[in-house]
Amino acid sequence: MSDLLLTNVRPMGGAATDILIRKGVISEIGPGLSAAGVAVEDGAGALVIPGLVDAHTHLDKTTWGMPWYGGRKGGVLQSLIDNERNERIPLGLDVHRQSMRHAVGLIASGTSHIRSHVDVDTDHGLTLLEGKVRTREALAGLIDIQIVAFPQSGLMVRPGTYELLDAALAAGADIVGGLDPSSMDRDPKGSLDAVFALAEKHGKPVDIHLHEPGELGAFTMEMILDRTAALGMQGLVGVSHAFHLAMVPEARISALMERIAALDVSIYSTGHPSANVPSLARMRAAGIRVGIGCDGIRDTWGPWGEPDMMHRARIVGMKNGFRRDDELELLLDTASGAGAASIGVPGRSVSVGAVADLTLLAGETLAHAVVLDEPRPLVVHGGKVAARAGKAVVEAP
Amino acid sequence: MSDLLLTNVRPMGGAATDILIRKGVISEIGPGLSAAGVAVEDGAGALVIPGLVDAHTHLDKTTWGMPWYGGRKGGVLQSLIDNERNERIPLGLDVHRQSMRHAVGLIASGTSHIRSHVDVDTDHGLTLLEGKVRTREALAGLIDIQIVAFPQSGLMVRPGTYELLDAALAAGADIVGGLDPSSMDRDPKGSLDAVFALAEKHGKPVDIHLHEPGELGAFTMEMILDRTAALGMQGLVGVSHAFHLAMVPEARISALMERIAALDVSIYSTGHPSANVPSLARMRAAGIRVGIGCDGIRDTWGPWGEPDMMHRARIVGMKNGFRRDDELELLLDTASGAGAASIGVPGRSVSVGAVADLTLLAGETLAHAVVLDEPRPLVVHGGKVAARAGKAVVEAP
Ligand SMILES: [Zn+2]
Ligand SMILES: [Zn+2]
Repeated sequence: MSDLLLTNVRPMGGAATDILIRKGVISEIGPGLSAAGVAVEDGAGALVIPGLVDAHTHLDKTTWGMPWYGGRKGGVLQSLIDNERNERIPLGLDVHRQSMRHAVGLIASGTSHIRSHVDVDTDHGLTLLEGKVRTREALAGLIDIQIVAFPQSGLMVRPGTYELLDAALAAGADIVGGLDPSSMDRDPKGSLDAVFALAEKHGKPVDIHLHEPGELGAFTMEMILDRTAALGMQGLVGVSHAFHLAMVPEARISALMERIAALDVSIYSTGHPSANVPSLARMRAAGIRVGIGCDGIRDTWGPWGEPDMMHRARIVGMKNGFRRDDELELLLDTASGAGAASIGVPGRSVSVGAVADLTLLAGETLAHAVVLDEPRPLVVHGGKVAARAGKAVVEAP
Repeated sequence: MSDLLLTNVRPMGGAATDILIRKGVISEIGPGLSAAGVAVEDGAGALVIPGLVDAHTHLDKTTWGMPWYGGRKGGVLQSLIDNERNERIPLGLDVHRQSMRHAVGLIASGTSHIRSHVDVDTDHGLTLLEGKVRTREALAGLIDIQIVAFPQSGLMVRPGTYELLDAALAAGADIVGGLDPSSMDRDPKGSLDAVFALAEKHGKPVDIHLHEPGELGAFTMEMILDRTAALGMQGLVGVSHAFHLAMVPEARISALMERIAALDVSIYSTGHPSANVPSLARMRAAGIRVGIGCDGIRDTWGPWGEPDMMHRARIVGMKNGFRRDDELELLLDTASGAGAASIGVPGRSVSVGAVADLTLLAGETLAHAVVLDEPRPLVVHGGKVAARAGKAVVEAP
């Protein structure tokens, strides 16, 4: 069932060849392969890369497919958070339905893995998590979904949230989330100690939203790095956004990036055009594991985005001022194989022995494929066809 | 021939109605219109807005439809300029063919007016202008193209360029261009005096690329404003990019914007995600005429972009951090009616007496239409159908 013969594809933009998949793993690559009784998909000369990876999104937030939501607010982060928490129920934002729409869009556009934060707060308890866990189960075998239990409305500032996060981690969340321990939680020591205590208790990794600007963000990052070192959590900690890495003086950025790389902390960037974002090329050159993500798409926070990592990659590439082919190739790698490694899924590549999470792309070269806004010809997850010609093999509700 | 009855359309997102066009002008708006012998187009409930306006692009630069160009360089502005000037001929970048592809793409996506810069330099003389003038003639009646004679390789630093600009303005260019009088031309007084002398001699407007950062850009802007006032050229001067308006201290930005508005100088912004760009909302609030543009798309400079002003509007909106419906409406206005006014084409609106440059959009509301990446149902230019279902009525070569 997870055997498949892909013919006439160009691995990483190279010469056309065939790929034989056995039990969900690439078993052979070469021209003119055949395998009795194995289903064949003709790649028609498309490029093939490891599956795309959305390393930072929020499947519980999108209004995709719902009537236009005209109630978006401006203002500070807190007003956006409050607006969403208050609007969820009046809007009829059913998390299972909406996360299905979002995730099926990502499957259709070639995504093999999603890391999605889910709001855990004292208004909604674990209901949002439950809806998303149902989505993860419904789409098992077509896409892998990691769930971060995310205290969107604050942890220290909303008593009862710690206990809810604890319960969420027992009920199916994979990763402990956090949010701006200084600027939002007003208690960086307390907040980070709580997050890392939950990580230790449940033996799970950490992924912290860190929007804090300038030296405040750098200070909080240092506290995260201190705990990563002290608890021996190298390779198990991620920080999302990290705007401060584009705001403090050059020498400080270099020193922070060196320590982030040494402690094997991953950074997730969404390339917000209006925000300060850390340089992708600089992080990769420093040896940091980096993933990119769509973040929220058409949610109560903002109207922008598509459930498509190639769309997001273009935004990240423009934001980083990329022009050259080698820069576009670095971008595509960050959106696929390297992005997988950044969320703890190493070894994704188009080579014998690798898990067959593969996405076909139109284009002459890898760089060309980055800018070409065309449907993905074929998406394979663990050797199984997940989407064809831009359409997933499952329907969203 | 330029009579047309548009039925079941929603002007600016309002209630569905009909629009009768006589001799290229909107003559009646109301439900249930009929007109004997007049062609009818069913809008099927689509929104209708004034035609989109690309206020800043370079039709002579794109590689659209050509094999992938992998030779892009990084580095400073000068290296990008030199790379392009040296690569044009080896690449086979035929300006007429390429500008046709670019402009037909813009027609298909609902653009009624383009302001396009054309390189005038001592290597290519007026050949690029000639190719673009042919395109303007070939597409007359479907889209209006303004041509700026643009000294891309410098004016003061390349002797002979002044005479070429002079000849270009006699040979069909509509507007005198300029480029970074301080940082590129190394002689702001000489450069601006030359540009304004050409404008006076030919009785034509001015449009200057001003990338200069911080206080240098503000200084050059002041010199432009001084000449605008001294020569009585209010309403006839435009400045493209104006990055400095996002870089100098707040009070200085306010003072500059006030003077820009008072002298009726237009600002054209392309919303580069990796650049500093002036705030669209702030400029509009200051009363400045503002246009937005695609700039170069998939040219030797960079791989990004689509020949589609709605695509560009989304980039500008994200860059400006827009979230609310009223912000999206301001954006759409800047991409259409207000953008037209910014390039000297006032009065474009969906109302009786206005020229019938109209673009239909899918969407529930104007804000929804901004984020919806769907083909334009119908494009009307001067009462004539220019595109249908995302396809122009002419083919590009
Ligand atoms: Zn997030
Ligand atoms: Zn330009």
